[in-house]
Amino acid sequence: MDRIPILKLGRALLVTVQVDMHDRLAMALEEDLSAKIVTTGARGVLIDISGLEIVDSFMGRMLDTIAAVSRLLDADTVVVGMRPAVAITLVELGLSLNGVKTALDVDRGMALITGDYGHASEGSEDLEDSDDRGEG
Amino acid sequence: MDRIPILKLGRALLVTVQVDMHDRLAMALEEDLSAKIVTTGARGVLIDISGLEIVDSFMGRMLDTIAAVSRLLDADTVVVGMRPAVAITLVELGLSLNGVKTALDVDRGMALITGDYGHASEGSEDLEDSDDRGEG
Repeated sequence: MDRIPILKLGRALLVTVQVDMHDRLAMALEEDLSAKIVTTGARGVLIDISGLEIVDSFMGRMLDTIAAVSRLLDADTVVVGMRPAVAITLVELGLSLNGVKTALDVDRGMALITGDYGHASEGSEDLEDSDDRGEG
Repeated sequence: MDRIPILKLGRALLVTVQVDMHDRLAMALEEDLSAKIVTTGARGVLIDISGLEIVDSFMGRMLDTIAAVSRLLDADTVVVGMRPAVAITLVELGLSLNGVKTALDVDRGMALITGDYGHASEGSEDLEDSDDRGEG
């Protein structure tokens, strides 16, 4: 894989990171994402990392870079689906992702960006979410 | 990677397939997806394959299986982001995905499932979508 798909969801863009990033993949993602923010006029970028059990300092810096670039293009960045172990690792690495907002899942991240997208508060709580956060 | 993340988006579930599926990964996805349909009460499943340049008969059958299982659980399956070359290949393989709905992008797929989710018709056309275009 040489490109990570970027999905347009209403006024936001969604990226699901499923594999470890290497230099070329990260650079391609940053370029694709900034181009797509401009062409779509997206107001926010959601980066789902629920598939990652480990986040290293390279990935942490990439998230920081994406957030900084997006901000210059007037889009918020929200990292969603972070596992507890990943959060602990990031803090231990000294990467608190200060410029990045976080949310527990995509629905809440979307609500952060648009304030009204979808049916985030609808229905019962997703039981499996607690699994996603716990299996790290 | 031994699991593909399943994201909850309002009343739908979203899976972004970025890598070639092998047996174990496909089985894990089918199991996770059916379990998550039940626990979340999702009305539909969106499978984004815009990251795939090639779809083989194994992947085609997996999509068919997911659609069949989801239907039994009262959820629609919509495959989104299919590339034209992929559509041609699927037809040549004799896999027309009869039980599967398709949509050009996530917004339109979501509209198919919920009829009202998000802001699908808002703003200007996404230029990049023309790359992904390819209904079967």
